[in-house]
Amino acid sequence: MTPTSHDAPSALATDLYQLTMLQAYLREGMTAPAVFSLFFRSLPNCRNFALACGLDAVLAYLEGLRFDADALGWLANQRLFHDEFLRWLEGFRFRGDVFAMAEGTPVFPNEPLLEVVASLPEAQLVETLVLNRTHVQTVLASKAVRVVTAACGRQVVDFGMRRMHGTDAALEGARAFFVAGVAGTSNVLAAKLYGIPAVGTMAHSYIQAHDSELAAFQSFTALYPETTLLVDTYDTLTGLDHVIALARDLGSEFRVRGVRLDSGDLGALAKAARARLDGAGLERVEIFASGNLDEDRIAALVEGGAPIDAFGVGTRMGVSEDAPDLDLVYKLVDYAGQGRLKTSPRKELLPGRKQVFRLEKEGVATHDVLARADEKLPGRPLLEIVMANGQRLPAGCRTAAQARTRAAEEIPRLPGRVRGLEPAEPAYRVELSRALRAYAAQVRTRVAG
Amino acid sequence: MTPTSHDAPSALATDLYQLTMLQAYLREGMTAPAVFSLFFRSLPNCRNFALACGLDAVLAYLEGLRFDADALGWLANQRLFHDEFLRWLEGFRFRGDVFAMAEGTPVFPNEPLLEVVASLPEAQLVETLVLNRTHVQTVLASKAVRVVTAACGRQVVDFGMRRMHGTDAALEGARAFFVAGVAGTSNVLAAKLYGIPAVGTMAHSYIQAHDSELAAFQSFTALYPETTLLVDTYDTLTGLDHVIALARDLGSEFRVRGVRLDSGDLGALAKAARARLDGAGLERVEIFASGNLDEDRIAALVEGGAPIDAFGVGTRMGVSEDAPDLDLVYKLVDYAGQGRLKTSPRKELLPGRKQVFRLEKEGVATHDVLARADEKLPGRPLLEIVMANGQRLPAGCRTAAQARTRAAEEIPRLPGRVRGLEPAEPAYRVELSRALRAYAAQVRTRVAG
Repeated sequence: MTPTSHDAPSALATDLYQLTMLQAYLREGMTAPAVFSLFFRSLPNCRNFALACGLDAVLAYLEGLRFDADALGWLANQRLFHDEFLRWLEGFRFRGDVFAMAEGTPVFPNEPLLEVVASLPEAQLVETLVLNRTHVQTVLASKAVRVVTAACGRQVVDFGMRRMHGTDAALEGARAFFVAGVAGTSNVLAAKLYGIPAVGTMAHSYIQAHDSELAAFQSFTALYPETTLLVDTYDTLTGLDHVIALARDLGSEFRVRGVRLDSGDLGALAKAARARLDGAGLERVEIFASGNLDEDRIAALVEGGAPIDAFGVGTRMGVSEDAPDLDLVYKLVDYAGQGRLKTSPRKELLPGRKQVFRLEKEGVATHDVLARADEKLPGRPLLEIVMANGQRLPAGCRTAAQARTRAAEEIPRLPGRVRGLEPAEPAYRVELSRALRAYAAQVRTRVAG
Repeated sequence: MTPTSHDAPSALATDLYQLTMLQAYLREGMTAPAVFSLFFRSLPNCRNFALACGLDAVLAYLEGLRFDADALGWLANQRLFHDEFLRWLEGFRFRGDVFAMAEGTPVFPNEPLLEVVASLPEAQLVETLVLNRTHVQTVLASKAVRVVTAACGRQVVDFGMRRMHGTDAALEGARAFFVAGVAGTSNVLAAKLYGIPAVGTMAHSYIQAHDSELAAFQSFTALYPETTLLVDTYDTLTGLDHVIALARDLGSEFRVRGVRLDSGDLGALAKAARARLDGAGLERVEIFASGNLDEDRIAALVEGGAPIDAFGVGTRMGVSEDAPDLDLVYKLVDYAGQGRLKTSPRKELLPGRKQVFRLEKEGVATHDVLARADEKLPGRPLLEIVMANGQRLPAGCRTAAQARTRAAEEIPRLPGRVRGLEPAEPAYRVELSRALRAYAAQVRTRVAG
């Protein structure tokens, strides 16, 4: 059992070329140790940092990776694979080492989020899913950090499931949002698997199905006295009047926690709603806003003084609408003890296993140094070993809650311009260590030679 | 067994409020028939139509939906749900009817992609996943149609898995791309489940791990004589020289199908590569291009006369980068025989079950008419019954290949301006039938009264 209940995906959830290359490596006897490094080359313009996330899902995948009879039977019918190779796959278990940044760590271009050290075929085989698992959570966590930042301490909850890209994204995403500081999720399965508070109000359909809005409010609060009532189905201010009427009717039995605004000018409606509620003595009824929200809209509402207590954020966070992907890659940087690189234009590589040192002054990060793995430099090293010989180590067993704590500790240590929503000027600095630069030059000479 | 092997997601893969509303409906005895309609209100600026996709996954979900002991036990611990309700969930099976457009049908704003007719609690419960399943495939198919259009008959293959949003998106997406006309996928599991041709070449790491590029080419072709060789790891034109050297060396044994360019100026490199290959008598070696491609880049390459035979398209198609979501909603339009609507600003609803008629002139669609379900109007009706009493009908059992055929027949019947990549001017017209307008007015009067 993995500590956080990620299901192991099918071993066939991979790119075909992983299997064809694997068969070739085995045929050629190319089974020496390899190092693959997972990093991104640049950030989208609208991101100052990424939040590393998805490691637990990667480790669960590596632990659970098996080719079952069904998968092997199908592969046998493709006329691409020899029996000897299929027998090798049948016995395959991932037995490599993984070094990684803890989930919840802010990460910058060219810094490895993780490195896999294993025999070349093993390390190659896992590329597709190691990328896929890390990419989805890192992209979504990096978006959610911005939304949480914009909310300035007001609660943000995840309503994205219905329009996130599939069920797996909804699950991994809810977890990533939680790591990034989102307070709860409407996704029941994610709540169950990751211990995230489950949240929810009511849908317009509930109001519509009743003969009147007031009747709907009465029925729902009879069953759920502390619920949040959705007030915009027909007209928001009339909806508020119905909440007030219900409060008068119920007297001290009225325990409704909040009202939800889901359309129209949320800033103006929140002010009107606050005034109307306060005028009726309902100061403790909170205002919850939703409807096409993202960090920019939330920041505008907060700056405009909208008396909104919490935000429900769906699609725009759920698909990371302004930056739905990161150019995350998984690249061979060492094989058989020799550093490896590429020289394709704009796709250069730095050879060898690495370490990242984060330097701080008075508790605020000044810059990072990307170094060779064996260097001892000033600053905090961010990569640690999380799996050895295919077995998780304690550092590879952290929960979503622990990752959330990590993010909550690490993000405030970034410089203000990097934490903010505007493009950081200047961008956070990542230097290469002298030893890494010298090694890269040396390998480049060897490869060119 | 479902016809296309979609796994049934967990019953807890839903929004919390579906369960709380469901309990309320049952308590209130609100179990009369309801109609929910799934549609989008508008298209992103960069889409002229959407391609309906995901129905098979929806039907598989509805067929397989069960609350198992684990789910019920967890729910029981939430202190929200009564025993009577949990017993009801335990016996729950979806027994409703579904009307839908066939997968592969072009669809426009306000047109239902599908409608669910079931008792209110049943129809409400399934909202989240019906949306999620339809949304991911429709978004991704709608992007892929554009990529296929841009390629002007050249093959497009899906390389997106590593950066798509999770494993489910990679699977559903590969299927959606295939429906939209993409020729193959690198995703082995999708190939297996949906009968899509599996494709793949080789990675840079394979080249890097060998002592030289030529040695890597020799080893790979010895095992896979008809492969495609990746030539840009160090320098594209030198890589081509290595392919030519290999061809000289192997003589009539040389059966390499193509070369892959993955970086740099693909148009210029393709021309140089074609000249170099042709000069060496390798006219039949194809040129395959990849690397940050989307419909705009492909269109530019095709218009620029780049001699590229096929395109590998990854992330930008895989996340539908320019439009990663659609404002797809699932709305109550009828309950207990009465049309229902909302009047929230910009979120109005048309009441009642619907039909869409597509009108054509000389084989080209002129416009659609959105009508009440029981109307008989000119044009082809697009919604058909696909599930009755929870059981799939023949129209609900179509495969991905059949959906692909449907798309290949339907898309060419759209007007040229709508099929093209530029924003259609004017946009495709969707009219409301007289009867629907009258009915909407009548319901509006009732709800306001």
